[in-house]
Amino acid sequence: MKKYHVAIVGATGAVGTQMLSILEQRQFPIEKLTLLSSARSAGQSLRYNGQSVTIQEATPDKFKGVDIALFSAGGSVSKELAPAAVEHGAIVIDNTSAFRMDPNVPLVVPEVNELDLQDHKGIIANPNCSTIQMVVALEPIRQAMGLKKVVVSTYQAVSGAGVHAIDEMKNQSQSILNGEKPEAKILPVKGADHHFPIAFNVVPQIDVFDSNGYTFEEMKMINETKKIMHMPSLKVSATCVRLPVETGHSESVYIEVDEEGKNVADMHQLLESASGVVLQDSPHEQIYPMPSTSAGELEVFVGRVRQDLDEPNGFHLWIVSDNLLKGAAWNSVQIAESLLKLKLV
Amino acid sequence: MKKYHVAIVGATGAVGTQMLSILEQRQFPIEKLTLLSSARSAGQSLRYNGQSVTIQEATPDKFKGVDIALFSAGGSVSKELAPAAVEHGAIVIDNTSAFRMDPNVPLVVPEVNELDLQDHKGIIANPNCSTIQMVVALEPIRQAMGLKKVVVSTYQAVSGAGVHAIDEMKNQSQSILNGEKPEAKILPVKGADHHFPIAFNVVPQIDVFDSNGYTFEEMKMINETKKIMHMPSLKVSATCVRLPVETGHSESVYIEVDEEGKNVADMHQLLESASGVVLQDSPHEQIYPMPSTSAGELEVFVGRVRQDLDEPNGFHLWIVSDNLLKGAAWNSVQIAESLLKLKLV
Repeated sequence: MKKYHVAIVGATGAVGTQMLSILEQRQFPIEKLTLLSSARSAGQSLRYNGQSVTIQEATPDKFKGVDIALFSAGGSVSKELAPAAVEHGAIVIDNTSAFRMDPNVPLVVPEVNELDLQDHKGIIANPNCSTIQMVVALEPIRQAMGLKKVVVSTYQAVSGAGVHAIDEMKNQSQSILNGEKPEAKILPVKGADHHFPIAFNVVPQIDVFDSNGYTFEEMKMINETKKIMHMPSLKVSATCVRLPVETGHSESVYIEVDEEGKNVADMHQLLESASGVVLQDSPHEQIYPMPSTSAGELEVFVGRVRQDLDEPNGFHLWIVSDNLLKGAAWNSVQIAESLLKLKLV
Repeated sequence: MKKYHVAIVGATGAVGTQMLSILEQRQFPIEKLTLLSSARSAGQSLRYNGQSVTIQEATPDKFKGVDIALFSAGGSVSKELAPAAVEHGAIVIDNTSAFRMDPNVPLVVPEVNELDLQDHKGIIANPNCSTIQMVVALEPIRQAMGLKKVVVSTYQAVSGAGVHAIDEMKNQSQSILNGEKPEAKILPVKGADHHFPIAFNVVPQIDVFDSNGYTFEEMKMINETKKIMHMPSLKVSATCVRLPVETGHSESVYIEVDEEGKNVADMHQLLESASGVVLQDSPHEQIYPMPSTSAGELEVFVGRVRQDLDEPNGFHLWIVSDNLLKGAAWNSVQIAESLLKLKLV
């Protein structure tokens, strides 16, 4: 079996460390592993398959000989280094928003649009975490019943904002429990004018605001869903909200399907056999997805499936997944596995 | 000015103590105050206007001479004692779900349907907390533009489940911060088969499940909204979710209005002049409602107003209010104030 030279850019981050752990867990056929980071973390080392790998500063020349480069170090790093990696012959799987809406870049969730990988020109984009888990659950429904409209409200974990946001939430939580005033320096957006405590609070802002009053996170969900599902005229709207949860995004999703006369049993049947989905929907036994039971798992968990009481074609779903795994690291590694399967690398 | 004999049933609870504090804050014209509770809390005392008031066990005879009885001690207590209070000549303002859908009982949010009080037959119901804040924000829109459809996803605080639920959340939070396993004995529903930690988690269950897969909390929002707004055929759906927040419910609300050609500026104008509403909607200054800024306030805070990008008549709103105040204690006291104003007591 052929083995590959794999690089991780942003190896020390919340997603980068998960990428490393999933590559190991999946026994990805790695010949050589290159771990890259900012100058600040270079020189440190991380364990992979029982061996210590020294982290190097990410510079263009480090991609010589690399077959697959997994990027998760922020959009500006991707914009600077991904083209260099491609020039050196690497296929880039980029977890930032830098190239997602570029018409020349496939935006891929393997359960939904794996074959879009065939059109890649060196860079493949990994969608936004909150988009990925939603389309995994909606694609089997779209295939069987058609899809007209999606209204989603998210319940997003702080790890989506990085390891420092997790520390901030924990420190704030301890301060509040001690009766002290919490300090806020990172959330909702690093570098924004105002910071608000997330501990024991709910913040209806993820990423910065667009001129239309939607946040970039909301526009990502709207635009990426249409691109991944190949449905430019799908009606999608999103409200994205941050909560004091460490890992695991939840989503309350209202959909309207095309086909008439469908019911919850039809939905259950579809979701039970859907790739990457685990149905957890037995309300009378109190079985439904939660972050506490989904964190650390690779799948997308779906429950609380209900038919709308007024709209016969309307359904409600509750979708939870680990935002660092299926929402980021696992979807990226899964794309790499698809590239191997499709003999594209 | 006439003064009244007021009783609070459930005086030691999360809502009861807020009722006491609001009666004092509003300088409600009280001649005599009777505080009632279960046998367990009887004999304790609470402060009112600088005086100590001894709590008595709630029994039918305690309502002799009472003009207004504010109930917030659970549905079974209301069912047992509210009729007795009415027999003794009291007007009951009941904060439980016991009588809300009774066609002979007005279900009142003063900003929306104050005049329904005129039809009372002794018992007046205070709606569910999550319903109240939503209808306060939607009523001015309904009046000006008509209302066709409402899809709400809630982000509800634990204080809605009582003081013990708050303690549970805090204890669980400290356990998790200490690296210990959290204990869950109350949430999502006291007496249910399974309990789940709420600290650093999201639980898509409030109250027990109905046979249609919706929770009672969701059905309350659906049915009560139609009753309060006098719109039996309004399309309403709800997904109710509990979060690790102490006080302050948030709601992501999608609506479709009847009138064509409306925009966000029209919505802002309506909400700015609406009774009981504070508009907090300046996204580029990061001004939007949050539980941390709404707890302790009497108003309903509305922000993140956006026009749907596909549905010209569709709008998105983010609505936050203190679930113990406007969601319970303040709405009850406000009903009492309306009774005085309308000379119904």
